[in-house]
Amino acid sequence: MRIARFSVDDEPKYGLVETDDPEGLSGTVALLDSDPLYRPVQLTGETLQLADVRLLAPVIPRSKVVCVGRNYAAHAAELGNEVPKEPLIFLKPNTSVVGPLDGIVYPEQTNDLQFEGELAIVIGRICRDLPKERAEEVIFGYTIANDVTARDLQKSDGQWARAKGYDTFCPLGPWIQTDLDVADLRVTTTLNGETKQDGRTSQFIFDIPTVLAYVTSFTTLLPGDVVLTGTPAGVGPMLPGDSVSITVEGLGTLTNRVIVRD
Amino acid sequence: MRIARFSVDDEPKYGLVETDDPEGLSGTVALLDSDPLYRPVQLTGETLQLADVRLLAPVIPRSKVVCVGRNYAAHAAELGNEVPKEPLIFLKPNTSVVGPLDGIVYPEQTNDLQFEGELAIVIGRICRDLPKERAEEVIFGYTIANDVTARDLQKSDGQWARAKGYDTFCPLGPWIQTDLDVADLRVTTTLNGETKQDGRTSQFIFDIPTVLAYVTSFTTLLPGDVVLTGTPAGVGPMLPGDSVSITVEGLGTLTNRVIVRD
Repeated sequence: MRIARFSVDDEPKYGLVETDDPEGLSGTVALLDSDPLYRPVQLTGETLQLADVRLLAPVIPRSKVVCVGRNYAAHAAELGNEVPKEPLIFLKPNTSVVGPLDGIVYPEQTNDLQFEGELAIVIGRICRDLPKERAEEVIFGYTIANDVTARDLQKSDGQWARAKGYDTFCPLGPWIQTDLDVADLRVTTTLNGETKQDGRTSQFIFDIPTVLAYVTSFTTLLPGDVVLTGTPAGVGPMLPGDSVSITVEGLGTLTNRVIVRD
Repeated sequence: MRIARFSVDDEPKYGLVETDDPEGLSGTVALLDSDPLYRPVQLTGETLQLADVRLLAPVIPRSKVVCVGRNYAAHAAELGNEVPKEPLIFLKPNTSVVGPLDGIVYPEQTNDLQFEGELAIVIGRICRDLPKERAEEVIFGYTIANDVTARDLQKSDGQWARAKGYDTFCPLGPWIQTDLDVADLRVTTTLNGETKQDGRTSQFIFDIPTVLAYVTSFTTLLPGDVVLTGTPAGVGPMLPGDSVSITVEGLGTLTNRVIVRD
């Protein structure tokens, strides 16, 4: 199932997407009566055209976006870093989350804004000290994330809270896919149509059960929390006006444009 | 006003504290009909003895706990660090928050669990790009925080998300004080009754308006978000069974005990 969060007027709604378009610009969405992340839901019977709705971030984490750094060897190497011995964990605030086609605001404090395309895990059940073999039980589904990074501030600040935490620095979407075998999926990022990143989830240094076991060895994950799995090689700069699209095979495509705030 | 969040049975309640006890173990609490952080409230007319209630963390941030590192020169020096040129910002997840007298769980992954006593700001209004001169407008009040840190993991991990983000690593309390001149307050931490930290907020490298202006230059603060202002010199280790108390002059005392999870 592909579960979208969307608006037709002011109130966010939830629905099941049927589409052949990876961005969900055409096709239909069958309305659900509530948010399936938090309660049992039913179809309302109403169906809308995706062309008539605006897709939103499929989830706003109630607590946190947990990220894994340097989880592809080729990406660690391209920034001159060692492959970590344990997952390298950092946080993005939930206020950094935006949705498909939302603008990524180019901050005036940076001169090197970069994209990082990633597969993202959406947590469905509260969990702490999760054994690897039970990881599947707490995963509600998957979506796509852009771990937008001000690369210069990441280096100068030391701690990454600002460089990765600006408002709009965590686009998520276009939907949550609940049935997906993520063992070996292609993850690509294009900038203005040109392919920049091209990796496969089979290249993870730490696989998803290992990441979730590690994260929950120190913090409780709540339903709606999101875990980003790291980015493949090929990260690079974006400029105002650029269009950045991240595709995860079998899931869809998340597109955003870089804008300058008035 | 001193606004407490507390429980007498299962449901958290809110009320105005009247007490001469800095920890609120005696005195009274006059019940409010809702959480004054989010809506206008009225007294219900009911008053309870503080001895009959359990004080909870006065706020669970909806989004984030933002922290300032090395904001007292003597503390930066004791850990061998330079005084930063800009505020050093990191995040603690809202899942790390616990309340007065709650246990701080000693993780099995650390051998150096440390206390850091701090004045904490509770945000009352959504804000972004806040001018320094308007800082007062967005501050709902102040509380006390222990920025619990696994010092060994802080050094070995590089990013501080784990070392400062474990569940129970952000005790907050005992209440939110809404009327407090924080220009020059004494901040002390005692371990088993022995004074370990003794600083004054007048020693901040970056004052509160500067911190809030900096934080909101990249992220939106929401009502209920909490900003920790940094710790004075004298940080040190805690062991299971230890009792740690942080006192902010004119505000109160936050006490927690270090425990080992079964």
